[in-house]
Amino acid sequence: MSSDIGLIGLGTMGAALALNIAEKGFDIAVWNRTTSVTHDFAKGAGDLASRITSTESLEGLVAALSEPRAIILMVPAGDAVDAQIEALRPLMGPDDLIIDAGNANFHDTNRRAREATGPFLGIGVSGGEEGARHGPSIMGGGNRAHWDRVAHILEAISAKYEGTPCATWMGEEGAGHFVKAVHNGIEYADMQMIAEVYGILRDGMGMQAAEIGAVFDRWNEGPLRSYLIEISGKVAGAHDTVTNGPLLDVIVDAAGQKGTGRWTVIEAQHLAAPIPAIEAAVVARNLSSQRDARAAGEALFGAAPKELPAGALSETVLEQAMIAGKILCYAQGFAMISAASDAFGWALPLPDIARVWREGCIIRSDMLNDMAAALTDDPDRNLMLAPDFANLLKLNHDGLREVVAQGALYGLPVPALSSGLAYFDAMRTHRGTANMIQGQRDFFGLHGFARLDDGSTGQHGPWAQG
Amino acid sequence: MSSDIGLIGLGTMGAALALNIAEKGFDIAVWNRTTSVTHDFAKGAGDLASRITSTESLEGLVAALSEPRAIILMVPAGDAVDAQIEALRPLMGPDDLIIDAGNANFHDTNRRAREATGPFLGIGVSGGEEGARHGPSIMGGGNRAHWDRVAHILEAISAKYEGTPCATWMGEEGAGHFVKAVHNGIEYADMQMIAEVYGILRDGMGMQAAEIGAVFDRWNEGPLRSYLIEISGKVAGAHDTVTNGPLLDVIVDAAGQKGTGRWTVIEAQHLAAPIPAIEAAVVARNLSSQRDARAAGEALFGAAPKELPAGALSETVLEQAMIAGKILCYAQGFAMISAASDAFGWALPLPDIARVWREGCIIRSDMLNDMAAALTDDPDRNLMLAPDFANLLKLNHDGLREVVAQGALYGLPVPALSSGLAYFDAMRTHRGTANMIQGQRDFFGLHGFARLDDGSTGQHGPWAQG
Repeated sequence: MSSDIGLIGLGTMGAALALNIAEKGFDIAVWNRTTSVTHDFAKGAGDLASRITSTESLEGLVAALSEPRAIILMVPAGDAVDAQIEALRPLMGPDDLIIDAGNANFHDTNRRAREATGPFLGIGVSGGEEGARHGPSIMGGGNRAHWDRVAHILEAISAKYEGTPCATWMGEEGAGHFVKAVHNGIEYADMQMIAEVYGILRDGMGMQAAEIGAVFDRWNEGPLRSYLIEISGKVAGAHDTVTNGPLLDVIVDAAGQKGTGRWTVIEAQHLAAPIPAIEAAVVARNLSSQRDARAAGEALFGAAPKELPAGALSETVLEQAMIAGKILCYAQGFAMISAASDAFGWALPLPDIARVWREGCIIRSDMLNDMAAALTDDPDRNLMLAPDFANLLKLNHDGLREVVAQGALYGLPVPALSSGLAYFDAMRTHRGTANMIQGQRDFFGLHGFARLDDGSTGQHGPWAQG
Repeated sequence: MSSDIGLIGLGTMGAALALNIAEKGFDIAVWNRTTSVTHDFAKGAGDLASRITSTESLEGLVAALSEPRAIILMVPAGDAVDAQIEALRPLMGPDDLIIDAGNANFHDTNRRAREATGPFLGIGVSGGEEGARHGPSIMGGGNRAHWDRVAHILEAISAKYEGTPCATWMGEEGAGHFVKAVHNGIEYADMQMIAEVYGILRDGMGMQAAEIGAVFDRWNEGPLRSYLIEISGKVAGAHDTVTNGPLLDVIVDAAGQKGTGRWTVIEAQHLAAPIPAIEAAVVARNLSSQRDARAAGEALFGAAPKELPAGALSETVLEQAMIAGKILCYAQGFAMISAASDAFGWALPLPDIARVWREGCIIRSDMLNDMAAALTDDPDRNLMLAPDFANLLKLNHDGLREVVAQGALYGLPVPALSSGLAYFDAMRTHRGTANMIQGQRDFFGLHGFARLDDGSTGQHGPWAQG
C-alpha cells in the first residue's frame, strides 16, 4: 500500500485523469465521497485496475500513499474545495502536498495558497474529458519546489507537442489558474470568430451546413489549422438522424457559459488590459440567450441578415479575416498575461504559456508554436508587432476589413472580428482621438490634460477661467 | 444655532454643493478636517455667508444642527467614508441621518447601509463642480422614509427639467450609486462615439478643428442636442494662445479614467447584461494610454488612418450614425439597469432614471425626455423596440452601417459605433449563430445542447457515442 499519488473526486474529469495517471505507470489511490462510485470506477478500469487502489475513507486514502504524499483534488470549484482541504489537511503530514486541479477562480487559489498550512498547488487542466484521459494541457501554480516534486507525473500524463510535455509551472499561488482563465477567454473569442464566419457563410453566402463544414476542413489544412477549426468542420458536417438533415440546423442558437470568460473580462478590467475580442465573445453569448427579444427585434425591423451580393466575399477573404482576427485575439490575451505578470509580481513565462497551449487544450494550434517563438524573441512586445505576425497581419488585414465592412452593410453581426480590427487600427495609430475625450473631461470636470508641444500636464482650456 | 443640514468635506464638489444649499435658502453647517479650509470657504461665501455656520469640530457640527439631524459626507470614496462614519455616528442621535454623496462603489454603499447603526443614504451626484454649484442630477439610495426627510432640500438644489427636479429616490441601499455608475458608463460610451466621429472628420475627411466644432454646433440643434455634443463643439472650437492654433490639436491623446466605467463593465459581467458600447469605450481609453506601442504600430504598419474617398461619408450620414449609435448605447445601459433591478431585488424606476438624467448631469439631453416616455410606456421593453426609437433606428441605421463600413475599410477605428451596430444586428436576428458554439461545446466538453424541433435539452451529437 504505497501509491505514488492520490486523487479525490471521481466525476467525469477526475476519473479520466486517474486512468491517465495509471496508464502512464503510476500507482494511484482514489477516493470519492460516494463509495459506490469508487468501486464502479475501479471495476471499469480494466487492465489499469492493478495500479489503482480504491479507498473508502479519507484516512484510508492518506494511508495508501507513499510519503511525502501528494493528493489531487478534482471536486467542483468553490466551497467544496475549501471543505475538502479542511477535512484533509489534519490527516496529512507537514510535507504532504494538496493539488487543486479543478476550475478554481485564481483569486481563490491565491487565498488558499496563502492560508495553506502545508504544501499546496493550484493547477489548471484544459482539454475536457478527452484531454484529461489521454493528455491535457497543464498550467501549474504554487511553490516551485512543490511543483518539482510532482512534475514527473504531471508531465507524463500531459499532452505532448512533438515530444515536449504540455505541463509547465507558471508561477506562485494562483498563476496556473490565472493562465487557464485567459486560455478560456481566448477560447471564447476564437469560437465566436468561427461562429461569425459561419454566419456569413450561411446567411450571407447561402451555404448549407455540409458545404460550410468543407470550408472549415479546407482551412484546417492551412494557417488556421487548429482543434477548434477541425471540430467546427465536424460539427457543421454532422448528420441528424431525426430530421435526416444537418445536425447544426437543429441546435438551438443560445450559448451557455460556465463563467470563466466572465472572470477573464473582469480581471482585464482590473488590469486595464484591453481584450475587446474576448469581451465581444462574452457579450455575444449573453445576447444569444435573449431569444425572445431577438425574435421581437426581427419582427419589428424585418429579417436580418441579408444575403451578400454575389462575389462580395470569398472563402479566401474570409480565411484572411480569420487569420488576422485570430492573431489579434491572441495578441490581446498575451498582452493581458503580460500586464498580470507585472501587476501581481509574477514572472509569467509567456513563451512557455504558448508552448503549453500547443497541444492538449481546446485552443491548441500550430500557430501557437510560432507564437512561442515570437514570445521567446521578445516576451514584452505585443504579438502583433513581432515580425512573423506583423507580416501575417500585413497580408491579411485587408481581408478582415472587407469582412467587417460587408458584415456592417448587410446586417451580419461580426462583433469579435470588428473589435479585433478596431484594436489593430487603434494600435497602429500614433495620433488617436482621445484628445477629444481629454478636452471634454477638462471642460466638465477640470480633470486637466497634457500638452503635446511642451509635455506639461494638468493643463486646462479657456473654460477653466472665471 | 440650528442649521437645516450639515456637510463634511469642503473640497471642490463639497464646497459647491454647500453654496448651492445655502443659495436655495437652507441654513447649513459645514466642517472640514483642515479648519483653515472651513474658514476660507466661509469667507468666500459672500452674500450666502449668513446661511453658513462654520464649525471646528465634529461635535461642533453635530451641535449646530436641528434635530433629527442630517449630515452630507463629501469625502473621497473608499476608506475615508468608513472612517468618517465611524467618527461621526457615536456623536449622533438614533434618528440622525448620514448621507454619503461621494462617488462610492455601490457595493460599498450596500455594505454601509447594512452595517449602519442609524439612518443612512447613499446618493449619486452628477454634473461636476458646475452641477454641484447650480443644480446637479441626484440619484438617491437607501430607506425611502429617510430620503423623504431630506427630499425637499435635495430637490431644491437639484437641476430642473422644465420645472421638474432631477432628484429621485431609486431604491434601497446602493441603488442610487448603482444608477450613477451606469450613468458614468453611458457617459464613457457617448464620449467615445463622439471621439470616433471626430476622428473620421479629422483624419478621414481632412477637417480642421474649427470646422469640426461647427459640425457639432449644428448637430446640437437637431436630435443629438445634448450637453456632450454642445461641449464637444466648444472643445473643438477652442483657441490655444500658445500655438495660436486649435487647442484640440495640442491636447495629448491619452484619456484618463477614475474607474467608474470599469465598475460598470464589471457589474455588467456579473449580471450577464450586454453593454458592448460601454466596454468598447473603456477599452479605447486603455488603448489610448499605450502611446509608445501605438507609435511602434504606426512605424511598422504604416500610417493609418487613411483619407476617405471624396463623398464616401457626409456630415448627414455621420449624424445618422451618431443618432443610431446613441440610442443603442442607451438601450444597453437601461437594459443593464433592468437586469440589476431583477438581480438585486430593487424595483428601479426606469422612467424616473431617464427623467433625472434630463438635466444637471453630464449625459443630459432632450433625447432622454423621449426615453422617459418610452420607458413609462413599458419599462421592461428594450428601448430599441419602443416605437419612437425603433423608428429613429429605422431611419438612421443605414448611416451607422456606412460609417462602420468606411471606418473598417479605411483604418479609422470606430469600436463603440461598430459594437453598437453588432448589438443591433444581433438583437434583430431571430436565428443567430450560437448553435455553432453549442455544437463546439458539446463536441469538446459534452455540455449538451437544446434542439429546435422538439425543445429537448441536454442533447448530444454523434461524437458523444463510444
